Amino acid sequence: MTFANVGTLGALPGKRDELVAILSRRNDELKASGCLLYEVGVNESAPDTVFVVEIWDSAEDHQSSLSLESVQAAITEARPILSGVMDGFRFDVVGSPLRS
Amino acid sequence: MTFANVGTLGALPGKRDELVAILSRRNDELKASGCLLYEVGVNESAPDTVFVVEIWDSAEDHQSSLSLESVQAAITEARPILSGVMDGFRFDVVGSPLRS
Repeated sequence: MTFANVGTLGALPGKRDELVAILSRRNDELKASGCLLYEVGVNESAPDTVFVVEIWDSAEDHQSSLSLESVQAAITEARPILSGVMDGFRFDVVGSPLRS
Repeated sequence: MTFANVGTLGALPGKRDELVAILSRRNDELKASGCLLYEVGVNESAPDTVFVVEIWDSAEDHQSSLSLESVQAAITEARPILSGVMDGFRFDVVGSPLRS
């Protein structure tokens, strides 16, 4: 079942764009692993927050992607600039008004 | 700029699936108005919550879609079964590891 992982990642003050760069860096392994959509964004009302929306073929595909070397490397690179403030939610996709 | 609107909508107990049906009902006006993605979902750990991820051409397109007759009708239909508990966030998309 299609799976969505949505979240906010707090960056240390002044480090938001650096975190955006890490998360947005081209990684073709993700699509090959079942990632259908991965959008990284910002909102000027939250200057130290990076927003992420991911949609995957399945929750299992998302979970196993976390052990990809490229993903582990990005996590290691990002860790020092994370504030530790995180939020978000996950869900199974059950429908869309854009398709029958 | 591509815009994401992500949220959770509380349904009255037992009304979640009815709310999912309203939000998932095919509506071709959305795509015509700039909606790129609209996913509706559930998470068994939150039995009275409907999750939504929307991605739009722009925040302006999203905003003006709210005055579409079809969208107003869905809001009117959904209102009686909403619990009033809502959350979520919005952001401007600035990148993706799935594209350069």
